[in-house]
Amino acid sequence: MGGWAIAVHGGAGIDPNLPKERQDEAKRLLTRCLDIGISALRSNLPAIDVVELVVRELETDPLFNSGRGSSLTEKGTVEMEASIMDGPKRRCGALSGLTKVKNPVSLARLVMDKSPHSYLSFSGAEEFARKQGVELEENEYFNKITWRCSSWQKKQTQSYSITVSQRLAPAALLRTAATSTGGLMNKMTGRIGDSPIIGAGTYACELCGVSCTGEGEAIIRSTLSRDVAAVMEYKGLNLHEAVDYVIKKRLDEGKAGIIAVSKNGEVACGFNTNGMFRGCATEGGFMEVGLW
Amino acid sequence: MGGWAIAVHGGAGIDPNLPKERQDEAKRLLTRCLDIGISALRSNLPAIDVVELVVRELETDPLFNSGRGSSLTEKGTVEMEASIMDGPKRRCGALSGLTKVKNPVSLARLVMDKSPHSYLSFSGAEEFARKQGVELEENEYFNKITWRCSSWQKKQTQSYSITVSQRLAPAALLRTAATSTGGLMNKMTGRIGDSPIIGAGTYACELCGVSCTGEGEAIIRSTLSRDVAAVMEYKGLNLHEAVDYVIKKRLDEGKAGIIAVSKNGEVACGFNTNGMFRGCATEGGFMEVGLW
Repeated sequence: MGGWAIAVHGGAGIDPNLPKERQDEAKRLLTRCLDIGISALRSNLPAIDVVELVVRELETDPLFNSGRGSSLTEKGTVEMEASIMDGPKRRCGALSGLTKVKNPVSLARLVMDKSPHSYLSFSGAEEFARKQGVELEENEYFNKITWRCSSWQKKQTQSYSITVSQRLAPAALLRTAATSTGGLMNKMTGRIGDSPIIGAGTYACELCGVSCTGEGEAIIRSTLSRDVAAVMEYKGLNLHEAVDYVIKKRLDEGKAGIIAVSKNGEVACGFNTNGMFRGCATEGGFMEVGLW
Repeated sequence: MGGWAIAVHGGAGIDPNLPKERQDEAKRLLTRCLDIGISALRSNLPAIDVVELVVRELETDPLFNSGRGSSLTEKGTVEMEASIMDGPKRRCGALSGLTKVKNPVSLARLVMDKSPHSYLSFSGAEEFARKQGVELEENEYFNKITWRCSSWQKKQTQSYSITVSQRLAPAALLRTAATSTGGLMNKMTGRIGDSPIIGAGTYACELCGVSCTGEGEAIIRSTLSRDVAAVMEYKGLNLHEAVDYVIKKRLDEGKAGIIAVSKNGEVACGFNTNGMFRGCATEGGFMEVGLW
């Protein structure tokens, strides 16, 4: 028990006909993200920095639906969302409606660290971004999905909200969670999903860190990430039991997936979709990258 | 046990020097809202309709900080938020960044009933409002606080987030919650508080309905309304124990208040601010309107 544990996901719900080369590409990205995280953990980088670093990598690669690869709204615009939560300190930062910010997770961290508020959105969030001097990009940079990826990804994101997120929890620096997404493909403008909502897509506390992915509406009404932690805190379940319980008892069928790490250095994944892009590793030597 | 229970609040954190006539005015409004709710319950109006009716009354009266009486942002604009949740069915609707909608709670209900999403914001939410044909008002209608109220209210809303919300739960129609607010006075534009966040400002399930009010940031990181329900569900506490537990164990000192009703027709209030505008009544004959 103890030591660090890291988990990362690239969304739940996978096209059963996803070509082998696309599957391999996803696995390579998940593996690269794990490697980046593990190296940073071994260098004793604080957990919050490691989380930010790994999510930035996911946002910068156009493969999954966040940052550069963000899905488009029904109007063809980009409206990104992200959140970060530092468990032991119960601090958090969240964002919705970003159209220009290259790395939403880093801005979420700045909301947590530098803003009087914990959740900013739309023009107010972009104004904060400019004041903080974070890197901005024009519209052409985003949604590489439209020119780059084959139909599988478009099809997939029409039926599922492919949240890209990352969570990890090293040694004494355990229990920090971050989630970043472009949101549901063809969403109405102004639609807010689960990723920026503390207790829905993202939650971290003394006991664990949790990130969810899938249909945001189902995750919101289930308060899914908080419930994983709540059944540990109030019902005494361990991490694996908590993830299983919440998926069976709280979540509507076929809607979402969960990754979670505990303060004991454990990692757990669960989903009731047909698959979830995920990678996990622990200091104890466990490592898994999987889709189905 | 059983029967209906209704609770309504007008915000937590009260200026200790609030003039007697202002206190009386607040009590009269809370009493009127209770009376409207009780009459509707006795007429067997569905809980969700009663909740909407009473919150509309609070939004239409400029006294508390929601709808017409909404606080202004640092730029002098109005950005209203609201949410509604139907407990037994676990359906919900939420809104942020409304500038023109006369009754945000009614639009939140339309998000729940008519939108593919559960949470809309800013221009996308206003576009939805226009499509749904809800009543709109120009900027002069809102924030009567600026011309109407004495300094107590301004002072108060500078130091506290005065959320106006309402929750009630009649007989078989128990466990529906709704919250509506103008948000924190002088908030940054784009700031999202707890009121529209399911599990933070508003939550309802099989067991209970809960609404919170106070500093939104503290309520968000505490997942306060979900935690009242969670300690009932997972820890077996009753309604009063749950509200007490969450205020003592989950909430930072001096930050917020809670109103809650259970499926058994009980009502509970709690706060760790100096006061909370509130009114409660049960079918069993209990009635209370209080500030301190």
